[in-house]
Amino acid sequence: MTEIEIGRGKSARQAYSFDDISVAPSRRTRDAEDVSMSWKIDAYTFSHPIVSAPMDSVASPESVIALAGLGGLSVLDLEGLWTRYEDPTQAYEHIFASTKADANKVLQRLYAEPIKPELVAARVRQLRDAGITVAGALSPQLTLKFHKTLVDAGVDIFVIRGTTLSAEHVSSRGEVLNLKELIYELDVPVIAGGVATYKAALHLMRAGAAGVLVGFGGGATHTSADVLGLKVPMATAVADVAAARREYLDESGGRYVHVIADGAMGRSGDIVKALACGADAVMVGSPLARAADAPGRGRHWGREAAHRDLPRGHIADFGVVGTLAEIMTGPSRTADGTMNLVGAVQTSIAKCGYNNLKDFQKVEIILN
Amino acid sequence: MTEIEIGRGKSARQAYSFDDISVAPSRRTRDAEDVSMSWKIDAYTFSHPIVSAPMDSVASPESVIALAGLGGLSVLDLEGLWTRYEDPTQAYEHIFASTKADANKVLQRLYAEPIKPELVAARVRQLRDAGITVAGALSPQLTLKFHKTLVDAGVDIFVIRGTTLSAEHVSSRGEVLNLKELIYELDVPVIAGGVATYKAALHLMRAGAAGVLVGFGGGATHTSADVLGLKVPMATAVADVAAARREYLDESGGRYVHVIADGAMGRSGDIVKALACGADAVMVGSPLARAADAPGRGRHWGREAAHRDLPRGHIADFGVVGTLAEIMTGPSRTADGTMNLVGAVQTSIAKCGYNNLKDFQKVEIILN
Amino acid sequence: MTEIEIGRGKSARQAYSFDDISVAPSRRTRDAEDVSMSWKIDAYTFSHPIVSAPMDSVASPESVIALAGLGGLSVLDLEGLWTRYEDPTQAYEHIFASTKADANKVLQRLYAEPIKPELVAARVRQLRDAGITVAGALSPQLTLKFHKTLVDAGVDIFVIRGTTLSAEHVSSRGEVLNLKELIYELDVPVIAGGVATYKAALHLMRAGAAGVLVGFGGGATHTSADVLGLKVPMATAVADVAAARREYLDESGGRYVHVIADGAMGRSGDIVKALACGADAVMVGSPLARAADAPGRGRHWGREAAHRDLPRGHIADFGVVGTLAEIMTGPSRTADGTMNLVGAVQTSIAKCGYNNLKDFQKVEIILN
Amino acid sequence: MTEIEIGRGKSARQAYSFDDISVAPSRRTRDAEDVSMSWKIDAYTFSHPIVSAPMDSVASPESVIALAGLGGLSVLDLEGLWTRYEDPTQAYEHIFASTKADANKVLQRLYAEPIKPELVAARVRQLRDAGITVAGALSPQLTLKFHKTLVDAGVDIFVIRGTTLSAEHVSSRGEVLNLKELIYELDVPVIAGGVATYKAALHLMRAGAAGVLVGFGGGATHTSADVLGLKVPMATAVADVAAARREYLDESGGRYVHVIADGAMGRSGDIVKALACGADAVMVGSPLARAADAPGRGRHWGREAAHRDLPRGHIADFGVVGTLAEIMTGPSRTADGTMNLVGAVQTSIAKCGYNNLKDFQKVEIILN
Repeated sequence: MTEIEIGRGKSARQAYSFDDISVAPSRRTRDAEDVSMSWKIDAYTFSHPIVSAPMDSVASPESVIALAGLGGLSVLDLEGLWTRYEDPTQAYEHIFASTKADANKVLQRLYAEPIKPELVAARVRQLRDAGITVAGALSPQLTLKFHKTLVDAGVDIFVIRGTTLSAEHVSSRGEVLNLKELIYELDVPVIAGGVATYKAALHLMRAGAAGVLVGFGGGATHTSADVLGLKVPMATAVADVAAARREYLDESGGRYVHVIADGAMGRSGDIVKALACGADAVMVGSPLARAADAPGRGRHWGREAAHRDLPRGHIADFGVVGTLAEIMTGPSRTADGTMNLVGAVQTSIAKCGYNNLKDFQKVEIILN
Repeated sequence: MTEIEIGRGKSARQAYSFDDISVAPSRRTRDAEDVSMSWKIDAYTFSHPIVSAPMDSVASPESVIALAGLGGLSVLDLEGLWTRYEDPTQAYEHIFASTKADANKVLQRLYAEPIKPELVAARVRQLRDAGITVAGALSPQLTLKFHKTLVDAGVDIFVIRGTTLSAEHVSSRGEVLNLKELIYELDVPVIAGGVATYKAALHLMRAGAAGVLVGFGGGATHTSADVLGLKVPMATAVADVAAARREYLDESGGRYVHVIADGAMGRSGDIVKALACGADAVMVGSPLARAADAPGRGRHWGREAAHRDLPRGHIADFGVVGTLAEIMTGPSRTADGTMNLVGAVQTSIAKCGYNNLKDFQKVEIILN
Repeated sequence: MTEIEIGRGKSARQAYSFDDISVAPSRRTRDAEDVSMSWKIDAYTFSHPIVSAPMDSVASPESVIALAGLGGLSVLDLEGLWTRYEDPTQAYEHIFASTKADANKVLQRLYAEPIKPELVAARVRQLRDAGITVAGALSPQLTLKFHKTLVDAGVDIFVIRGTTLSAEHVSSRGEVLNLKELIYELDVPVIAGGVATYKAALHLMRAGAAGVLVGFGGGATHTSADVLGLKVPMATAVADVAAARREYLDESGGRYVHVIADGAMGRSGDIVKALACGADAVMVGSPLARAADAPGRGRHWGREAAHRDLPRGHIADFGVVGTLAEIMTGPSRTADGTMNLVGAVQTSIAKCGYNNLKDFQKVEIILN
Repeated sequence: MTEIEIGRGKSARQAYSFDDISVAPSRRTRDAEDVSMSWKIDAYTFSHPIVSAPMDSVASPESVIALAGLGGLSVLDLEGLWTRYEDPTQAYEHIFASTKADANKVLQRLYAEPIKPELVAARVRQLRDAGITVAGALSPQLTLKFHKTLVDAGVDIFVIRGTTLSAEHVSSRGEVLNLKELIYELDVPVIAGGVATYKAALHLMRAGAAGVLVGFGGGATHTSADVLGLKVPMATAVADVAAARREYLDESGGRYVHVIADGAMGRSGDIVKALACGADAVMVGSPLARAADAPGRGRHWGREAAHRDLPRGHIADFGVVGTLAEIMTGPSRTADGTMNLVGAVQTSIAKCGYNNLKDFQKVEIILN
């Protein structure tokens, strides 16, 4: 940890983003076909480590099922439009028709509609019926309210995703989320985040999380730095949480908690960098928002952009580059890192001479 | 203090701006409602630490009274349009009608009108009559001339604000401002600045200031770097002055002088960073200039932009985003850090796990 | 090697690009006419060290012959349009007519046409008949398939150029390129690359390469950083490979392997910097793409931009600034480093007080 | 000197530009009127340290006389249009009519006209007759040819200004400039440059120069970095040459050679920074090019842009902001550092608490 004195008696830690780094090939190269891309968490195995984010712009029941069919873990947001509206078609239309100026107001209005418990259950069953690994996400705030509904409806993997999640939330109100107890009670693996520091991650691991989300999620559309002064340069955050994984592996006598980078990965090259920094998998939103068959049809936004009195994040218009299948597994027709994410990562690992995701965590990193 | 050799035998100090840093959440989080935002200087308590700047773009008697009503300290410039013109409406109109090309010329002409002592007294009385904590600002140059008028008219807090203020001004002319004597004579608390260094701040504290303004004020509209080669990266300046506060606290046997960051805080995230660096409060102009009920109606300028032969600063056109109340305390309808400043700071402190302004000065800072 | 900790337990190496550096004149100056620009590799001597890249945008049989006539080593791509099409005129026309949006698709289609072995031989003979030093390039993937054809047809210098080349390619398929054996069998000097690290370069040298290409080639048009997360800041890469040259010179008892910077040199100033970092010669594409008599007529692209399922690189439209002769040896009519490349390098070396390429490798470098 | 390893066995020196630094006020302030701006070199005293550059865009005999009248040293280029043409009016018109695309070609043609020795003498006499301190500039290349003409015609200060000047020019041609001999023979003070390093400056001082020009001159319009890979970050260069001044002062037993920053000072703030780094005076072109009564009428170019086969620099169109008098001594009507250069420097020195140019060399410098 490089501590730098920014003023008398005041130190800051130098941190690095994915833009600051790149990976360097070693003296060996391989065939891309020989690189294993498989990723396994708990009892679930996936053919690649790219997890789709629980965001309404990329995750409808249909797209979640389609993405699971492409081999990855795919998560539905159970606090988004799909549990607030029986049929969210019109809500999406309002979003498509919004302008840069009224985007947050439109989102505030649409997300003011209450969540329907029966829709939560119905969405989970819909995924279950499709035969995929069912993963649903709640915010820390609503986890206590809906977690039973999710489990009863048959969720396989439980995702608790907030802009900042801690294992120890302090409140003067009565009941608050005790993560450790909750995870103990649930009998499904929990992926939780976002965290950005070694200490916060270590506490989540000790609380029993199977996977930890690193980052505040949705780098492309959030504006936490402008509004809150919070920012997490991702290369440092991922490396720190990977260090927490090693520490916890030792102190737990062998429990391997997965580090999942979440946010700030707009292109395949960023995914490569996250894995190089020590991530076991990545959760992405914006790359998938560019799919013709994503519900957002090229638009991308996060739930925080709909916050009642302090919205963070815009509705970004990325445009459409191809189908979910083309974006995930190619073939690519562009050269900007927006298509064939899996193929790009596989090619990069091969060029660097490694043959699986875990070994690739040892690749040489360059600060540029 | 990181000293870097920039050439043989020539060292420079590495300094950091708010853009260079961010704050990092710790392992604990809190409810925003549990965070106390209150700030107290001398006998005066405020419900939040955001002080409005004595600039004609944001401070008319009406807006100063309105801002005080929103819970903060609010300062009127007693050398601006409101003490040069009985009714400055037309002067404001000329400013609204100015172009980028003639902005400085228009300001030079309008501010060439002499200050009327009777208007100085009248404006102070107007604030007094409204029942608010009355704070008025003078430049170091005119403090000697008008300070009695202010005190007689009933000012509660006296602000001496220049682009560069020192406790020791050297002049070949006769009488110059002796800050120490002046502060001793006045029986109201004095907030003085701007300063940017440990030493200059320490001397202001020794001169008796109750609060020290850090920065050259009005980063958004000044151009001191281009014209004078002067620039003060604010993160370092605030941290340094906070160190002077600690030093003086010790040498004075317990007098706590308030550090008030002044300038370079265009968004709520910047205010968060200033507090993280050690500021007790912040003085802001540009965020309030975006209010429909600010006198500048979206335009923002500083008094230096009207300087007779060496103007510094433009008339910036920020546009309007909401009312003073919405900008200060929300709710926000945008995601760029321009609305709900108090709420944003409170949320950020809560996410980082602290519960008051003083404790938040210990938050971890990241260099990004 | 400056190792910087980017996160707990994760270090990265700080690397520098040509943009980060410049060269500084010493206390002596010389006449440009007194500076020798000659470069010699194996038995071949050239009047300057600027090698033209084997890229279809700059290398047709005609332009390769013309460039050789201007004194430099000039390389034809034997896997490009000229060996896929008897007459590639129409293929070029399709490229000229392509748009930013469909560029990669157009290239994918044109380069899907199979390579004709008889054309490979014919193109080599065409260069041979012109009496120039014949240099032809293959990718690592096709070297095994066509190398005999090249040698039989009379190539003088064999170039193996891939985006990432290693002396040790590992594959589960059967036959793969064993560089050491191949170079031993061939009786022509081999220039091979691209590599970016000390170790990879050292292994290529041990495999018998006469010259090593540093870089991933074609910085102007590739997008490896976005797609693959790979990037090689060239100043560091060239300096590292020059260090490998010194190491191998010692361990081989005196075999001097030439270091040839390849890519990221869009202007004559960049060529100067590459030589300053230790390059013996440079391979350039984009500067020559600006020639009216280059086959690309101002357009520039690399073979990777035509990759079947993961294209990297665009068709850049640089426009035309002059003839190949004017660009290479002047006179220049512009001041942007795009004309009179040889003259500019010669002038720079003279201003820094050196009188040949080898000595210039000692010039002082500035980080700016 | 911070040496950084940019690659194995290859170090570079970290250097800083004026944009990287600023100056910081100290604990004392002064009245601007109390700051002495006077500068003295050899027997000549000036009321300020801003020397006008010998460039055709700013220096005609008329403007040189006008600038001298404003208190500064003012230099005419004796190899420019005014010694090639009896009446250069039409040449200027061609330049005004040039476009971005043909600028260098137009300059190449106009400056191909031979220099007339009789015009050299006539121009010097014209300045002499005006009663000003006569300063004329030659390039190192033509100094031997014309220096007698200059001295005979009555030049007071002799300026030798090239993009790179060394005390030791090595050539295979016969006669070359031996600076030491020349300066010894001439009985007028010589200002020579540009240099950028400690060693080169020290040698110029030992050769007898009264003043040393630091920089390659005319940063605004030159493109040495693009064309030649040469760049001199000015803060470091000025500080280094100031260190050479101290070294030479000691070794010569008290001869004080003036350090004159030349180039990269487009605004008054840059001049402040040059003085802070140790410059005794500054030579500026671009700020004066913005004068209505400068011969270039808002256009700015250097002689290198007219180079026969390797032009460097453009014709920049800065536009007009005021008269030479307003730009030099105000009053200013803008806030961008383009007017009242002398007043701005004086104000800055006062705000930092110093009272003359020499003391200001001790001001604290900030790296930002």
